[in-house]
Amino acid sequence: MALLSSGKLANLLRLADAGGRFKMLAIDQRDSLRNALGKAAGREPADITYEDMAATKALITESLAPYSTATLVDPVYGLPQAVKVIPGDVALLVAAEETGYERAGTGNRERKSRLIQGWSIAKAKRAGANAVKLLVYYNPDVSSEVLSFQQRLVERVGKGCAEEDLPFLLELVTYPSEETSGDTPEFARKRPRHTIESAREFSKGQYYVDILKLEFPGDLKYSREFHVGVFDGRERAPVYSLEEIQGYCREVDAAAQRPWVILSGGVDIREFLTNLELAIDAGASGFLCGRAIWKDAVPRYPDLAAMRAFLTSEGAYNFIRANAVAERARPWFAHLPFVRWEDLRVADDGQEWYQRYQER
Amino acid sequence: MALLSSGKLANLLRLADAGGRFKMLAIDQRDSLRNALGKAAGREPADITYEDMAATKALITESLAPYSTATLVDPVYGLPQAVKVIPGDVALLVAAEETGYERAGTGNRERKSRLIQGWSIAKAKRAGANAVKLLVYYNPDVSSEVLSFQQRLVERVGKGCAEEDLPFLLELVTYPSEETSGDTPEFARKRPRHTIESAREFSKGQYYVDILKLEFPGDLKYSREFHVGVFDGRERAPVYSLEEIQGYCREVDAAAQRPWVILSGGVDIREFLTNLELAIDAGASGFLCGRAIWKDAVPRYPDLAAMRAFLTSEGAYNFIRANAVAERARPWFAHLPFVRWEDLRVADDGQEWYQRYQER
Repeated sequence: MALLSSGKLANLLRLADAGGRFKMLAIDQRDSLRNALGKAAGREPADITYEDMAATKALITESLAPYSTATLVDPVYGLPQAVKVIPGDVALLVAAEETGYERAGTGNRERKSRLIQGWSIAKAKRAGANAVKLLVYYNPDVSSEVLSFQQRLVERVGKGCAEEDLPFLLELVTYPSEETSGDTPEFARKRPRHTIESAREFSKGQYYVDILKLEFPGDLKYSREFHVGVFDGRERAPVYSLEEIQGYCREVDAAAQRPWVILSGGVDIREFLTNLELAIDAGASGFLCGRAIWKDAVPRYPDLAAMRAFLTSEGAYNFIRANAVAERARPWFAHLPFVRWEDLRVADDGQEWYQRYQER
Repeated sequence: MALLSSGKLANLLRLADAGGRFKMLAIDQRDSLRNALGKAAGREPADITYEDMAATKALITESLAPYSTATLVDPVYGLPQAVKVIPGDVALLVAAEETGYERAGTGNRERKSRLIQGWSIAKAKRAGANAVKLLVYYNPDVSSEVLSFQQRLVERVGKGCAEEDLPFLLELVTYPSEETSGDTPEFARKRPRHTIESAREFSKGQYYVDILKLEFPGDLKYSREFHVGVFDGRERAPVYSLEEIQGYCREVDAAAQRPWVILSGGVDIREFLTNLELAIDAGASGFLCGRAIWKDAVPRYPDLAAMRAFLTSEGAYNFIRANAVAERARPWFAHLPFVRWEDLRVADDGQEWYQRYQER
């Protein structure tokens, strides 16, 4: 019998479609969006104002949230506008982490994540969030000091979500700690293991994770089938085959003892759709995707009308294609730790439930 | 500029359809359902068990919640099962009041409402509720002691909802304090004034009400047009005309400085649909209806298969008809205190919003 508390169950149902599949939009980018807007407008990132960020996010949210089952915003620039433009039948996810990271470890190549100062899980819940999302940078090969720092942060947020009875979506993103860049054969080679090990670690009960948001376990641009520049015109040295990558996807699914969704990490839409197909073949429950869907609107900034024209045509088309792929996703309640819808129940239900259920 | 806090706005949007119209199902009845089940099964109400109540409510909720924009449950018998069977795009309303009332005043003919012991607004919020509903009995002609008791109760719940940033739906139900029954010409004559005065009182700012759930301001069975037994076969003395009742509806709309919806009070479906048409003509924003839609399933108890057959055919048809009428409802954001969608904003938005926004 799979037991869930009332708030977790009610809000998990809101995040997914009627079949239990996640088709989620991310518009919680901060520094990466600020840099892209600066580039588009020929201005320094520091000259992009709060209002520039808020207006861009509101425009993307208004245009694309209606295609999603849930939309992820940040509380700083996004939430106050998003609440009005996200349709009532689309759920609201709110990011908990501060943008970027603190450098740490040997040669300052390691990363510690931080929470947004002045924000909290209790505030997210009160403001109407249906789930809290936390991004942590996690490369399983770095120092145990940094790994344990990141683990403690996840534990803290997981417990906080349990106290508020709110679903907890954990995003895990690796990074190169030895290579010159993430776009190298050496790092491409490591990606599958990083994703698999991270999924295994954060499926442990002490983290109270409800949904894992994972990177695709490999880089198709380094696959034998796609290495000749299929996605971005640049040829790279192949490091694995598509069949091997399919095996990594299955390993992710086995390691994840939680429903998992795939992120886009800013790859182009064609590459993302291929990632999504492969992840869903292996048992992913959908996607939480931002830039792959809407990033081509950003070079049009500050022409908001041109951005809107892109978002409501190409952007919407991108979303519809991703949704079509996700129709085949495994429903969240069919993944571990649940497996059978019939067995799912509110924990501790029965005659005295309402008295025993806690306020915090 | 109409300002709403984030949690109020996000959840108001969830309660309504995309056009801002409330099409809501009530299945929070307790004593009245217990009595009806007892009658149907030929048992004493006291012999109807917790499991009987919970199973009946789960069956009605599962069958009809998909037709609603929001479903109202009680936390005692309904919520733990309802959370699983209410679709993810249908909002959850939770009742705060104890069933029945405490007798008070002259001749014990007056009514004081009470909250459910062991439950709270904070629990409702944490469990996933999108709004709190409070029913208070309110006959504006009774003693000032009882009126002020009821007012203080509403104030307390209103403040509690504001603290949790959760919409507050207040249901006002009058009762005969001098007449032998509510089904008398004398009381039918009083109904319009009671509803109008109650709507005016609880639109005051100190109650923090977001939606008023009101009785129809009149009894069509006592109207000149319908008094010959059109709805229930029983002839009654007419006390007003349909045109006069239309005027009362307009008075309710003027008195209500909040979006308002109509309740069914257990009348038959044909009478309810007529009430609904008239209320919507005058500016109601929809309905929150229980028994008129599903009560004819209850005499089939304990034959759950027969109940399900009724609910998924006649019951669904009743709901669809009510929804069709509600298509003409005034969107909640077009009613006072909002009026224009364009002017609606999250209060205190801007750069420091997330820091200033409070946890409680």
